[in-house]
Parts: sequence; structure tokens; C-alpha cells
Amino acid sequence: MNSAHSRLRLVRAGIDTYQQPVVYMHRDCHVCRSEGFTALTRVLARSGDREVVATLNVVVDDHLELDVAALSESAWTALWPGPEAWGVFSHPEPPASAPALRAKVFGQRLGETDFLALMRDTVSNRLSDIELTAFVTACAGERLDKEETVALTKAMLAVGERIDWGSGAVLDKHCVGGLPGNRTTPIIVAIVAAAGYRIPKTSSRAITSPAGTADAMEVMAPVALDLEAMRRVVEREGGCIVWGGKVRLSPADDILIRIERPLDFDSDGQLVASVLSKKVAAGSTHVLIDIPIGPTAKVRSSSAAALLEARLLATAQALGLNLSVLRTDGFQPVGYGIGPALEARDVLSVLRNDAAAPRDLRGRALDLAGALLDAAPGAEPGKGRAIASTLLDNGAALRKFMAICEAQGGFTEPGIAPHIRPVFANRTGQIGQIDNRRLAKVAKLAGAPGSAIAGIDSRLRIGDGIKIGEPLFEVHARSPGELEYAFEYASAHPDIFEIGVGQ
Amino acid sequence: MNSAHSRLRLVRAGIDTYQQPVVYMHRDCHVCRSEGFTALTRVLARSGDREVVATLNVVVDDHLELDVAALSESAWTALWPGPEAWGVFSHPEPPASAPALRAKVFGQRLGETDFLALMRDTVSNRLSDIELTAFVTACAGERLDKEETVALTKAMLAVGERIDWGSGAVLDKHCVGGLPGNRTTPIIVAIVAAAGYRIPKTSSRAITSPAGTADAMEVMAPVALDLEAMRRVVEREGGCIVWGGKVRLSPADDILIRIERPLDFDSDGQLVASVLSKKVAAGSTHVLIDIPIGPTAKVRSSSAAALLEARLLATAQALGLNLSVLRTDGFQPVGYGIGPALEARDVLSVLRNDAAAPRDLRGRALDLAGALLDAAPGAEPGKGRAIASTLLDNGAALRKFMAICEAQGGFTEPGIAPHIRPVFANRTGQIGQIDNRRLAKVAKLAGAPGSAIAGIDSRLRIGDGIKIGEPLFEVHARSPGELEYAFEYASAHPDIFEIGVGQ
Repeated sequence: MNSAHSRLRLVRAGIDTYQQPVVYMHRDCHVCRSEGFTALTRVLARSGDREVVATLNVVVDDHLELDVAALSESAWTALWPGPEAWGVFSHPEPPASAPALRAKVFGQRLGETDFLALMRDTVSNRLSDIELTAFVTACAGERLDKEETVALTKAMLAVGERIDWGSGAVLDKHCVGGLPGNRTTPIIVAIVAAAGYRIPKTSSRAITSPAGTADAMEVMAPVALDLEAMRRVVEREGGCIVWGGKVRLSPADDILIRIERPLDFDSDGQLVASVLSKKVAAGSTHVLIDIPIGPTAKVRSSSAAALLEARLLATAQALGLNLSVLRTDGFQPVGYGIGPALEARDVLSVLRNDAAAPRDLRGRALDLAGALLDAAPGAEPGKGRAIASTLLDNGAALRKFMAICEAQGGFTEPGIAPHIRPVFANRTGQIGQIDNRRLAKVAKLAGAPGSAIAGIDSRLRIGDGIKIGEPLFEVHARSPGELEYAFEYASAHPDIFEIGVGQ
Repeated sequence: MNSAHSRLRLVRAGIDTYQQPVVYMHRDCHVCRSEGFTALTRVLARSGDREVVATLNVVVDDHLELDVAALSESAWTALWPGPEAWGVFSHPEPPASAPALRAKVFGQRLGETDFLALMRDTVSNRLSDIELTAFVTACAGERLDKEETVALTKAMLAVGERIDWGSGAVLDKHCVGGLPGNRTTPIIVAIVAAAGYRIPKTSSRAITSPAGTADAMEVMAPVALDLEAMRRVVEREGGCIVWGGKVRLSPADDILIRIERPLDFDSDGQLVASVLSKKVAAGSTHVLIDIPIGPTAKVRSSSAAALLEARLLATAQALGLNLSVLRTDGFQPVGYGIGPALEARDVLSVLRNDAAAPRDLRGRALDLAGALLDAAPGAEPGKGRAIASTLLDNGAALRKFMAICEAQGGFTEPGIAPHIRPVFANRTGQIGQIDNRRLAKVAKLAGAPGSAIAGIDSRLRIGDGIKIGEPLFEVHARSPGELEYAFEYASAHPDIFEIGVGQ
């Protein structure tokens, strides 16, 4: 093809469109005219030996010169053009996985090569957000069967990197989210590493919640480690708690999650493929899955948990992964704090055996660490919890945690917010239900996780008695404005802690 | 809610993101920080008494000031802020139709109120492209039943405008696309209006094809008429051929089509709702649907056509619309030209009864006009084609067409391209198949429809003999570069006209 018509000088637009590459051209540029490009056309951009498929946005005023194409951050990173570089633009061929996508949308079963084609096109940005959404929707509900779940998981693995830790067991745990403050991971990693096992934990940052494990951990130590830095920490201390986004273990999953999250269509098949592809890619051999069950948690009933558990176990078996599941109480928040620093404070108080440490957080961490130690090779079944308890009580877990923090770049004590305001009970009675979703929203309005010291602090649990005028919870914020903002929302929703009138 | 935190001065970004409103804010602006907005967050923007839900793109360099939010063209049009106006930004509530969307994705049947909620949120931009795609995918294949198709059609009607033509029959026709050069509409409208019926035809521009009816008509007369101008033309001449985009009869359908087109998931239910909602909104009472059937047409088999026909008839009955269907040959292009001016030339040569006029185009136009006249109230069945033939032969249709062009703003004779180059046969034999899709691509590479005089001209039909070195077709272009571009593609695909060796 003659390319003289389709060249434009490349500049950086300085616009972040997340993982969705965008290219900006002037409406009257010769490329738009000769190629027939209009707003939202999918465009193949090449520069040197790199290429990216991007979505076109059309500039209609004189901000952009006629011989220039501006690239969004993700398009720029993909092409990485030199100074004064030119790009060549054309219509991309339809993605190789288009027939497989169409077949899935029309209800057909897919095989391994189909899923592989789909995941290849996913990681190479050949699928638009519209196509990715169609794939996610076509797999929602019960539309992925057991074999397809295994095939999708293998395809996700095939298009990413895998960490090789050499021979021997590599332990890991994962919580099927949905419970504010459920920050057991740093405690479990500390205990399991203190017991002599390898547990290289990658965690996520918050996307829709007030804090992810990576956010809470970052209050205490650096977490944005690359693979080599992570490896050095694990070789020295046996464990780590780092941010998975820097390691990028399952890039296909990262892209699908961007689509799945706003839709909130949790199908078991996709959830299992997402979790297990990341675990196998991380080199894990023995994995414990925590499934909290409760009316406002992600998994809402025992029957739903049983289905998910069966799918997890079948897929793990097909992948040669040793997997165990622990179903836990998902009715209410765990620990006292919600928000990065407040959750870090709770973690430290458990590790330090403070008398005032939240007992529920300690109990859950010991249950999970115990179950993981029980599942480890060579373990004497049923002894795990006692071992975990000993390592926590005798300070070995705290010492290991501090050593991990040092290896990750140095420990910092969490700070305290300068602005704190209590929300009071408007009646006397007994705490009935706690609305985890609204409580999380108050913490976010207060500034969490962007402001690490912001969030919610509450010692109340379901069944506790409360008198009118007593504090239900405290709002913590960095600025008076954010405090006010969260407080107003909390006042407008007095039933976040439902108070039943007793006897 | 306290809004001091969430105000920004509004400016126009000058970026066209099609119907998908986008707002641009600086990463470090106080709204992004206090609201926790990041790239691709859905944002509710209010100004005065207007509001729009937009997608956030984050500016990471100093192109945008910290106290400013820039709006894409569609966001600007929706808010239409005065000079120096401020916008207030917040997280939108989840769309009212979210539960219905989720139910459909999980395979449940929806009722009328569900579809109404979905279409209301569609036209008010409450659904993101990701949510719209999930809806379209969840309805694909056989996932919309007959009752749901009727309910979706009624919901599309309920959220748009309807034209009232007063009492009496209003005729209309629609072709379930897929055939290059199939430009029967101007001829049919001229014949039916000459027969004394009202036929207010709205047509589309090309989106993925080398020419839409509106593009071809625009070569001969203005087509971008608003509703009032269209009404004046029809009151004077009985018929019109205008661009539907200016009239905006079914805004929900326009939005769904934007999603459906790149996916190419034609489900009968969605196709029927799309076509019939537009026809009822246009005030039509008697509608003829042309279904071309062929291997590279939209409908590929008689059995597929029968299913579509049944769904069309059942839905039309539920809406009180008189509908008839004509299945036609969809194996090869119709007429000689592909491209706006070349198709207009063919239309005029049929209307003018030129000896060299394409017989297939004339025959199809008479078949369809005849069927429509047969279906009109008071018609004597079976006489329609003879009436149509007489009106064409005696010049009444040509006079009516010229009168319609004058009423729409004046007739112009189509021009001829300055650059024409033939593509020659590389062997001797008989034309077997014609690849309509690749042929359309050559026309687009030559510049159609952006360049109205560009396209393809060919008199060959399936079964015709051809000798090596004889011309298969001509490429027409505005510039030597575009000519070369299309010619290269055609040369690289010598089987667009498949030549079988005879005997």
C-alpha cells in the first residue's frame, strides 16, 4: 500500500485514557480524508517496528495542526516514538479472534485455540472496549462451563509471564473480596514466612473500595517493586507484600477486569480464571481461597459459595495447583479501621499483640494462616492454627513483618488524620445490620484511599448495644472540607448502622 | 452535598468523541482529588439546569489549567454552558435501568417497563458504552423473544418523537442492506409519489459502505432537511428522499446502532426493533421490506429470511402497522456504479428511460414499487407492477423526481471523476462469484463516499464471459493518489470477480 497519504508527525497529547489507546487527529487532516476516518474509528498506527490499534478522537478546532497526530498516554507508551518521528495510519484488519467472539456471543462453546486467540488479541490491544465488553457479557452468568473455564485460564496464562521460584512449595492466599477492613494478608504473610515457607504475595490497590491491601501496606513500606526487587525480598525473607500492578502477572486479566468492574457481572467462570491465572503465573503451588459470605459481601449465600468452590477446585486440579477454600463470615467489617492507615494500624496492633487489637481480625488471620499451614506439603493436618498462634504470640510474626518491610525499602509507622469527627447514634438499641457498601462510601468521601490517613474508625459490631448520642463511628480526613463532605453523606444515611430497639 | 469542592470552569475541548460525552480534567485538579476521579470514571456534570453523564479523560501535562474542565463536542452540546460558566461534578447514581440490564445479561426475560427504563437511560446518556454493549450483547442471537421484540420497539418509540401526517395512508420502504449499488429508493419514491401516494422517505448516509441512499441523493439535491422542511416537501410533492440523521426519529436506535455496527451482531430482534421503531416514528402506515438474500449480503439464506420475515410481521401486527416483505436476489451488485455519483447516474438513467440504463436496477425498482402499490389501501392486487411500469415509461416518475429535487432545494447533474483507471482480467473465462465486500472496499479506498465522484463502475454480471486483458471494472477517483491506493488493493485481490475457466 502506498503510505505517503497516511503519514503524520507524532506528538504526545498528555491525556490519560487508561489502558484504552486514543489517537487525536484534526478533522481536516489528509489522513482522515483519504482513509475516511471519523470519530471512534479504530486505527492502526505504526512507527518504526512498533504498532498499536487505537480509537480515533477527532479535533475540530485549531488546537492541533493538520500534519500532526497526538497520542494518549497508553498509545504513546505502546509506540514510544523518537523525537520528530512519523506515524503511518491505516485501517486495521479485523482481529483474528473475531469469529470466536461472534461464536461465543451466539451461545456456542469455545475451545482452547479460540480462547487463546481472544486473549492474544486482548493483550495486543486488537480488541476495542466494545469487543471486550461483548466477550465479558457473553461469558457472564452460566455461559462458561467447566472446560471453558480451564481453557480461558490456560489462555490467560499463555499470554503472560510466569515467575519461576525453582523447586519447592510456594504458598499464596486470596480473598474473594467485598469486606471493608478485612486486611488479614500482611498478618498471614508474616506468620507463614515466619514458619519457614515461601509466600510471595502480590496485592491490588483499591479501585472501587476505600483501600486495597497494597494501599494499606504502602502506609508501612514501599510496595511498587518490580519483579527483580520482589524476588530479592522473597529470597531474603521468604515473603513479601507488593503491588501486583508493577509486576503485571496476568496482563489479559488486568484488561478484562477494567471492563468487568464497572459492569459488576461476577460470573464464577471469569472470577476463577482471573484468580487462578494470577496465582499460577505468580509461581504458586499451594493456594488458600478465603470466601467471605454475607448479604453485602461479594458472595451472598452458602449455595453460591459451594458453586464457586466447586469451580475453583476443578480448575485448580486441571492446572496442577493445590487449592483449598475457607468460607468465612462476611456479615460485617473486620477490624476497627477502614482506610489505608487505619487498617495498617489494626494490622500492627494484631502483630504487636496489643491488648486493644481487634479480635476479629486476629481470629480471621489465624484461621487463614492455620488453614494454609495445614495445606502446605509435609504439614501435620490440624496443627496449623496452633503453630500460627504461637508464631504470632511469641513475636516471630512481628519480627518477620518488620524484616519484610525493611527488605521492601524500610518501615514507616502509620500517621493519624488531623481532622476527626464522630457520627452519633440517633436512638438507643442494638446494632442489627451494617451496610458495608455505604460505610465504604463514607470512607471514600472522606478521601480514602487517595488520602491514606482518611477513613472510618468504629469498634461496634452486630449485636452490640448503643445509647442515643453515643458515637457510632469516627470520620477521619486530611482536610475540613473532605471531613464535612463525608459527614454530610453519613448524616443523610442514618441506617448505615441499623439500630434495632431492644426489649 | 457541599459543592464548593466540585466546581470547575467549563471550556470547549474541540474534540469530537461522537455521541460519547467526554470531560477532560487535570490529574491534580481539586475535583479529581476530592472525588477520587481517575481516567474513565463516569462523572455527572451539571451547569445551570442541564446535566450530562460523561466519561473522564485525565490530562497529565500542563495543557489544561487546574480550575478548568474541558468538554468534548457532545458533552458541550448537552450542557451548552454560557461564557465563563462553571460546572459542578459528582459521581452519578447508578442508572435506574441497572437491575434490568443485569437481569438480561443473566438470561432473564424483560418486560415493557424494563425496556422503557433501558431506553430512557440510553437516550439520556446514563448508560456508558460498556453498559450499552452489554445490553446489545445480551440481546444478540436468539435472546430476544417475540414479546420482548415488541416491548423493545415500543420502548424505542416512547423515548422519541413521532411524525403525525394526519389521516390517510403513508407508504414507506426499507431494504435490509448489504448490496452495493442497490439504489432503488429514489426510483421507487418517484413512482409511488407519481401514483398519488404519500411516501416521506428518510435514508441513512454510508457508515461502513461506499454510499448510503442519502449520499447518492445528495449528489442530485440537498438532503439535510429538518422536520419542517421535510414536511413542506411532502405536502407539496407527496414524497421526499432526505437524510434521517437530521430528523432524528429514533434517538435510542441511533445510539444502539453506534454500538451494534462495529460488533456486526445482527440479531433479528434488534434489527426488527430498529427498523420498525423508525417506521412507526416516521408516521408510516404501509411498509414494504426488501430482503436481498445472498452469500455476501446481510441475509445469507432463505431460512434466515423466513425467520426474519416472521419476526417482522408479528411485531408490525402488534404495532398496528401494515407490513409486506419482498425477498430479492442478493448475489451480486445492482446497477453499474458503486459510489454516490455513479449510483446517482444509474438512478437518473433508469428514470430517463435511457437505452443503456442498468436493467437489473430498473427491474428491482419496478418489483418493489409494484409490491408497495399492491399493498396500498384500495389497490387492486397484482396491478401494482404494471402501474409502476407505466409511470416510469411515460416520464411521470422522472417529472415527479425532478419536482421533489426542486422542492428539496434544486437539482444538480452528477459529476464525473477526473481520474479513471480500468482493472483488467488476468485470465479468460466466465464470471463465477462477485465478492461484494471487497468490491465495496475498493470503492471506499478510491474515496467514496467522502469524495462523491469516486467509486467503481462495472457492467459485468455473474455468468458473463470475459477475455484476458479486457476490463473487469473501472476505478474512479478525485486524485491520482486515491486512484493508486484503490488500484493497488484491487490488484492484490484478483478474485473480486472470480473468473471460472469455461467448458
